[in-house]
Amino acid sequence: MKRLITLFAAILVTAASFAQAQVERWGCFETSYKASVKSNPFDVKLTATFTNGSEKMVVRGFYDGDDTFVIRFMPGKEGTWTYVTSSNVGALNRKKGSFECTAPSEGNHGPVEIDGLHFKYADGTRYYPVGTTSYDWMHVPGDYPAKTIASLKESGFNKVRSLFFLHNLNIDYPEIYPFLKNADGSWDYEHFDPRYFRYVEDRIMALQGIGVELDLILFHPYDGGRWGFDRMPLEANMRYLSYITARYAAFRNIWWSMANEFGGLRQVPYDYWVDMTKQVVDGDPYGHPVSIHGYTAIYYDYTNPLFTHTSIQDHRPVMEPGYAYTIRNIYKKPVIFDEVCYEGNNGARWGILSGEEMLYRMYNGILSGCYVTHAECFNSGPSDDFTNYLAFGGDFHGECWKRINFLRHSVLDDLPNPLALSDSSWDPITSTAGTGYYLVYLGKQILNNWTFNLPAKNNFFQPIKEGDKFQVEIIDTWNMTVTPVRGTFEAVHSGDRYRFNDKNNRSIQLPDRPYLLLRIKAVTE
Amino acid sequence: MKRLITLFAAILVTAASFAQAQVERWGCFETSYKASVKSNPFDVKLTATFTNGSEKMVVRGFYDGDDTFVIRFMPGKEGTWTYVTSSNVGALNRKKGSFECTAPSEGNHGPVEIDGLHFKYADGTRYYPVGTTSYDWMHVPGDYPAKTIASLKESGFNKVRSLFFLHNLNIDYPEIYPFLKNADGSWDYEHFDPRYFRYVEDRIMALQGIGVELDLILFHPYDGGRWGFDRMPLEANMRYLSYITARYAAFRNIWWSMANEFGGLRQVPYDYWVDMTKQVVDGDPYGHPVSIHGYTAIYYDYTNPLFTHTSIQDHRPVMEPGYAYTIRNIYKKPVIFDEVCYEGNNGARWGILSGEEMLYRMYNGILSGCYVTHAECFNSGPSDDFTNYLAFGGDFHGECWKRINFLRHSVLDDLPNPLALSDSSWDPITSTAGTGYYLVYLGKQILNNWTFNLPAKNNFFQPIKEGDKFQVEIIDTWNMTVTPVRGTFEAVHSGDRYRFNDKNNRSIQLPDRPYLLLRIKAVTE
Repeated sequence: MKRLITLFAAILVTAASFAQAQVERWGCFETSYKASVKSNPFDVKLTATFTNGSEKMVVRGFYDGDDTFVIRFMPGKEGTWTYVTSSNVGALNRKKGSFECTAPSEGNHGPVEIDGLHFKYADGTRYYPVGTTSYDWMHVPGDYPAKTIASLKESGFNKVRSLFFLHNLNIDYPEIYPFLKNADGSWDYEHFDPRYFRYVEDRIMALQGIGVELDLILFHPYDGGRWGFDRMPLEANMRYLSYITARYAAFRNIWWSMANEFGGLRQVPYDYWVDMTKQVVDGDPYGHPVSIHGYTAIYYDYTNPLFTHTSIQDHRPVMEPGYAYTIRNIYKKPVIFDEVCYEGNNGARWGILSGEEMLYRMYNGILSGCYVTHAECFNSGPSDDFTNYLAFGGDFHGECWKRINFLRHSVLDDLPNPLALSDSSWDPITSTAGTGYYLVYLGKQILNNWTFNLPAKNNFFQPIKEGDKFQVEIIDTWNMTVTPVRGTFEAVHSGDRYRFNDKNNRSIQLPDRPYLLLRIKAVTE
Repeated sequence: MKRLITLFAAILVTAASFAQAQVERWGCFETSYKASVKSNPFDVKLTATFTNGSEKMVVRGFYDGDDTFVIRFMPGKEGTWTYVTSSNVGALNRKKGSFECTAPSEGNHGPVEIDGLHFKYADGTRYYPVGTTSYDWMHVPGDYPAKTIASLKESGFNKVRSLFFLHNLNIDYPEIYPFLKNADGSWDYEHFDPRYFRYVEDRIMALQGIGVELDLILFHPYDGGRWGFDRMPLEANMRYLSYITARYAAFRNIWWSMANEFGGLRQVPYDYWVDMTKQVVDGDPYGHPVSIHGYTAIYYDYTNPLFTHTSIQDHRPVMEPGYAYTIRNIYKKPVIFDEVCYEGNNGARWGILSGEEMLYRMYNGILSGCYVTHAECFNSGPSDDFTNYLAFGGDFHGECWKRINFLRHSVLDDLPNPLALSDSSWDPITSTAGTGYYLVYLGKQILNNWTFNLPAKNNFFQPIKEGDKFQVEIIDTWNMTVTPVRGTFEAVHSGDRYRFNDKNNRSIQLPDRPYLLLRIKAVTE
């Protein structure tokens, strides 16, 4: 098989010696300089200070091969930016320039930032991560990368978790690697191969084009001795992290995942992940989201302030409504469950969920004010089958992915605020998105009817009070329908001091189906 | 009502100017010196260095009133200890002495220490905390203290959570307080009243006599403005913590609970609890267990190394089997749920559990390798009714407490190792206590029979293998019976690669009752 290295090359012109005159806000300004150095050019020190009024930012440049040194910068403010370089190489030092930062184009909301227990884009637009996982799609030859971009776009996912280093799948990869080789065939960890970084960049930009964040997995244990990138010397790890952040931090849709199943990288001591994370955080002046991912039920110390959010592998907290909320109560930062088992048919217990179960777990986490990442692994034959989206990307073969657009646009985009449980630890199925806005998730319950009933507590929003009137919609999360219930409901105290009922004790007839969500909004008359 | 201040005075002779010649290991050596000082005697610096061979320990003394300065020391090693004092008061400086440390008497296993995710006594004996809560029993007048000691002894609890400062209950307390008063009637936070500390000491020693650890709650918000001990100046808090640790750290059965429902102490900033905890940890050379307790679902940052274990208020993780294990996976230190609602009839949703539900939650936590504290709050009339064990102690009125001796002695004492889930996140009801030792908790399930079935994984113990033979006992946790099942079971791989069945697919007939626990032990032939 042959890969289409140039697939997305039109999107980002790299390594050309030029500087743009105009860049939109949160776009990627790039300038480059030619210089021939005798020492290892990857060791050249190069920074640039960008200034726009009171805003000032220092970014690192990087060597891109062919005597070319590149500086990238993501401007966070419109107007004129000027810059000046600093380097230990004369030809790269005191270079000056400027560019105009224009308004962001449509769909460009800037990088994702942390907002308490949630996320938002830099322009203030709410960002609810609804992600999937495809480890190796960036590296698989053929049309898999393009197909993956297309399938992500169609499905409506806004985040994908993918490996930077190659996955040891049973396929031929092109002979381009992150590092050059020494004469003896071993890796030369002091010399990167910019072509590898560049084609990953193409994919980052392709994702950016469809509004998808890339949760880039910086290390993983699925190398199996084929290349040894999971067992590099610790200094090589550090050097790589320094280089990749200098190259990629200016892309607004990048996230850093220090590792997948970090425990599998047996040569990296537990505490050393903190040092490596610090290397990433220090190397990224934009503060992109950063986390680390363990084996099932192995929780790294996510309370460490270096980690902006959790990236948990554990399905237990999302097996039923409400339990995930405890994890959020503990961490006090955004909680993402990045692996809760996969929809699929691969026979392993982690890869045999039905589409319904996958979606159920996602809703369980989301309605508890957390976030849950999807994945599917369907094999039509051998285990490295190309129908396995988890490994190869390409086209989805499951059922859950079809419900993602609905989840995002019909449920999440309607929220006035991010979700929380109304009455933590007491009511696991009632979530709030603000004053007079509730979601009651019936999950696997199949009920003939539901009697109007809401908790008196409403997280930190205004609680319900007697006389409040509500309208109810029945959302079928699987069949993707929203059915308004006729008439209104009026809250009165129930016999239970912690709950409110309808004045006439009115109940709602429900379809005989599971996975229903009731959306209950105050009526403002 | 009048209190019996001298109730337990016979147990510990305090403030006498003498030094013991013999003290058993982990007993409390005490010596005292007379000195009259012009400045505030509570500000006198007094330490003593105790030496026994290569063992050396520096402890602080304290002022006990009546020109008497006391030094207490808990020797951790048998043999001859010599000591020398150091003080800024000449009469207290360079005092020397020695005593003989003898073998511990029966029932004295030393202080409780942290052992990974669990606890043990200093002599290596396993300690499984099975505690209850009685906030004010130490301070309530009348025979409540004596009755509480008796009821704790009878029930088999080995830990009690209690307040140091008075609880604002609707009763008259004797006119003895932790502080003396200024002329204007305000508290003189620079002068403690040793009598108050002394009668609490009497109760600590009474608990020690029946093998019960005291989880001493150092601050609480149930003062309601009556005395103001919940809103002292921060320096007064620090001074108090310094004094109480100097006095009490030498008692082997003391634990420090920084606060109950710390959020209620509104004048203490969140981060200041760390400073105060540091004051306690620095003031306690023995390293007694220390934690802090929040409101429901409010988790302090228990990952802070100052906290030896969690002291969580949250029932959600123990509402069903297996979920508590996640909390343990996160914290990687011993997890205690110190409040999961109470057995009782007080009408509030946190005080209306049945005895069955209280016990169920305890087993859910315990079988997940955590610990769960009991409490009951039965009122026969007004809310400050003396039948409320949670507040007053005295006699138990519920049903759960009767099952504690059985839980401790018939279930926990039988374990070869502390409990863990065999197959974290996958099997919430099967726990392991070692190679060939399983507990399967059926909880609320009422089954006609149970087909022999165990997970292939067994935490970090030896996993099950084909041909292993087992015997099964049916434990009725509520009715406190242990019924051996006739015959043995032989493990074979089931169709599911993660499980083992019996070779003949044998099942066990079960009584039609909930709360059954199956104890499954390998037969060594």
